[in-house]
Amino acid sequence: MLHIPIEELDRRRDVLQKKLQLQDMDGALLAQNMTMYYLTGTMQCQYVYVPATGPCLGLVRRNMERASEETPVPLRRLAGFSGLPSLLAETGQKPSRLGLELDIMPAALYLRIAKVFSCETADVSTAVRETRQVKSAYELKQLRQAARQVDAMHRLIPEFLVEGKEELVFAAELENSLRRLGHQGIARMRGFNQEMFFGHVLSGISGGMASFLDSPTGGPGVSPAQPQGPGRKIIRRGEPVTVDYGGIHNGYIVDQTRLYSVGPIKEELKRAFEAALLIQERICENLAPGISGNEIFEIAVAVAQKAGLSENFMGFGDTQAKFVGHGLGLEFDEFPILAKGSPHLLGEDYVVALEPKFIFPTDGMVGIENTWRVTAGKPEKISITPDGHLTVS
Amino acid sequence: MLHIPIEELDRRRDVLQKKLQLQDMDGALLAQNMTMYYLTGTMQCQYVYVPATGPCLGLVRRNMERASEETPVPLRRLAGFSGLPSLLAETGQKPSRLGLELDIMPAALYLRIAKVFSCETADVSTAVRETRQVKSAYELKQLRQAARQVDAMHRLIPEFLVEGKEELVFAAELENSLRRLGHQGIARMRGFNQEMFFGHVLSGISGGMASFLDSPTGGPGVSPAQPQGPGRKIIRRGEPVTVDYGGIHNGYIVDQTRLYSVGPIKEELKRAFEAALLIQERICENLAPGISGNEIFEIAVAVAQKAGLSENFMGFGDTQAKFVGHGLGLEFDEFPILAKGSPHLLGEDYVVALEPKFIFPTDGMVGIENTWRVTAGKPEKISITPDGHLTVS
Repeated sequence: MLHIPIEELDRRRDVLQKKLQLQDMDGALLAQNMTMYYLTGTMQCQYVYVPATGPCLGLVRRNMERASEETPVPLRRLAGFSGLPSLLAETGQKPSRLGLELDIMPAALYLRIAKVFSCETADVSTAVRETRQVKSAYELKQLRQAARQVDAMHRLIPEFLVEGKEELVFAAELENSLRRLGHQGIARMRGFNQEMFFGHVLSGISGGMASFLDSPTGGPGVSPAQPQGPGRKIIRRGEPVTVDYGGIHNGYIVDQTRLYSVGPIKEELKRAFEAALLIQERICENLAPGISGNEIFEIAVAVAQKAGLSENFMGFGDTQAKFVGHGLGLEFDEFPILAKGSPHLLGEDYVVALEPKFIFPTDGMVGIENTWRVTAGKPEKISITPDGHLTVS
Repeated sequence: MLHIPIEELDRRRDVLQKKLQLQDMDGALLAQNMTMYYLTGTMQCQYVYVPATGPCLGLVRRNMERASEETPVPLRRLAGFSGLPSLLAETGQKPSRLGLELDIMPAALYLRIAKVFSCETADVSTAVRETRQVKSAYELKQLRQAARQVDAMHRLIPEFLVEGKEELVFAAELENSLRRLGHQGIARMRGFNQEMFFGHVLSGISGGMASFLDSPTGGPGVSPAQPQGPGRKIIRRGEPVTVDYGGIHNGYIVDQTRLYSVGPIKEELKRAFEAALLIQERICENLAPGISGNEIFEIAVAVAQKAGLSENFMGFGDTQAKFVGHGLGLEFDEFPILAKGSPHLLGEDYVVALEPKFIFPTDGMVGIENTWRVTAGKPEKISITPDGHLTVS
């Protein structure tokens, strides 16, 4: 059974091909797992060749049976690496300008491809990422399902959140819930060395621990070998407890964060949470085609400043992140980037996670995150869980 | 508090430096997260420079505070990419031959580094991987802890394994148990596009579904966007249920597989399981310094042939994998590779997972997997869970 409709795959290919033509490419040999899944509906290809015009070609090492069931894209069996050019030549493809995703393709593989094809190569990763940043009706449907999945998990939190419980145990219960709801487990990031396990469930001071990750929060993790997310810290009364776990349905991710606590939190943290909600509101008033990532970031900074909280916005000290959101879809770090200096201009049907957060060294993090669709009118909120801070007794 | 002892880090660096000297390198700029963790004890570096002699240098973007606490290696703050050569020059390092891990470094990053340093570069990934394949007393201690962790999970299986339960729900219960036991969640593979979520819990026909992954088993997963591991299949009486979940402690992985079933399994499957145990025994009689990965594979194939099961060994048809085991440590796919044609010669204190498995198209998989340390004498079994097939009623 086909997983993604043919017309959807054709549309995706058409968009990418226009961009390849603008770069004067004869074709692109794509090798990143989510790019290949995006273009074919299967993860069973080793490479996908996209000519400047005409059908894609999937090159399969394993598993041919699953690939054939999952994609309408023509497939060929890939025996050895050196046979790649002749395999393409058999289908009439002899690129003299070949596009590659150099942002993530390993250098050794790039050098081998450049050698075996002995043709000009160019980086088409921006073309691929810009193609993927516009979400179709099919993709929005997957995202809405992911929103329902993560919402169902949030509804269980009042049962699981108990004073005196380890962060890690609370997190394990949420992970267990998400898996039963069909979460795929693996949470993908495209960036080199970036990694994620569900997301960040953090309490109190853990919310103030930044990590190597390109994210406002880090957390202790279970050891320096996995220094992000929940650790062995005990959840205490009066601390902010933030749950930043995404829902994932058919590969598509909805990212959202909600604030909880056992008993009330400090007034200062309540005010910061209100400021985060206000930032979200101000951004949404302006979230429309044509605005840049940098302008969105500036809106957020202005609200934070007015609230007297600019030193705690998205971190503090030298770990302060200069961003307020990001595109997402099959990966947590898709285009556009909503950050200081980002030139990305938003367009219709871009999907972004907005995550204004305030971080205090000892008190931890408070903030909000929702996934939004940019439309010609008001942005559509894809997340469905209520925004408010929920206190359990 | 330092996470890894100084003398351990010094020893690791010394081994790598000897290999860099043999390659006539002035130094290596290493950027892969587990390589950097291995050499420093922290994941908070953006790059680690290893000169041919003398101390390493960690270059930190974020988080400097955590990096300083976790590693004794000298650190410098990395502001911008173009400042890399001058930052090194300040410490007296001006490499004219620079080693890089080209097997995993993205091509775009490689091209930028080659340009900004304008010096000769060479691939030192084999030197790095060969350094990492010999495990120290410290590392063996972590692995033994990981073995205890996954064993504690296995002891819970008789409680969780019930006829009529979804694979995914059974798996979620095991994942929940592992997390409570301190499992870090993230399961790392070095290979491009390779990914893993805990491992594979499979029942009946699911055990016969190969995937794109370099692994004998695949499984349905929850969708074509995550086509490995458990899916929504119901566990039935009389089916083999295999649990291939690793334990991970301080980053170090123990890989093991155990066979379970609700009620007895077919005689044919029992015989295949006995053959897998016999392969393990025969390999262990020969598992010693000097034997090659290819020879180990040939031993396995000979036993499978004698048992009349060569067509089901490590897969069937065109998805049959030509391997029987792999090195492991911080990643599931470390050196050595125990596969057809593998030239890797085993040495003392190499740690390998041996996983003889038989796979049948409709009945699924039976087999065994344990993690072993190669010694001058008999191999040490690091896994501690009993090997036998456990039947619950």
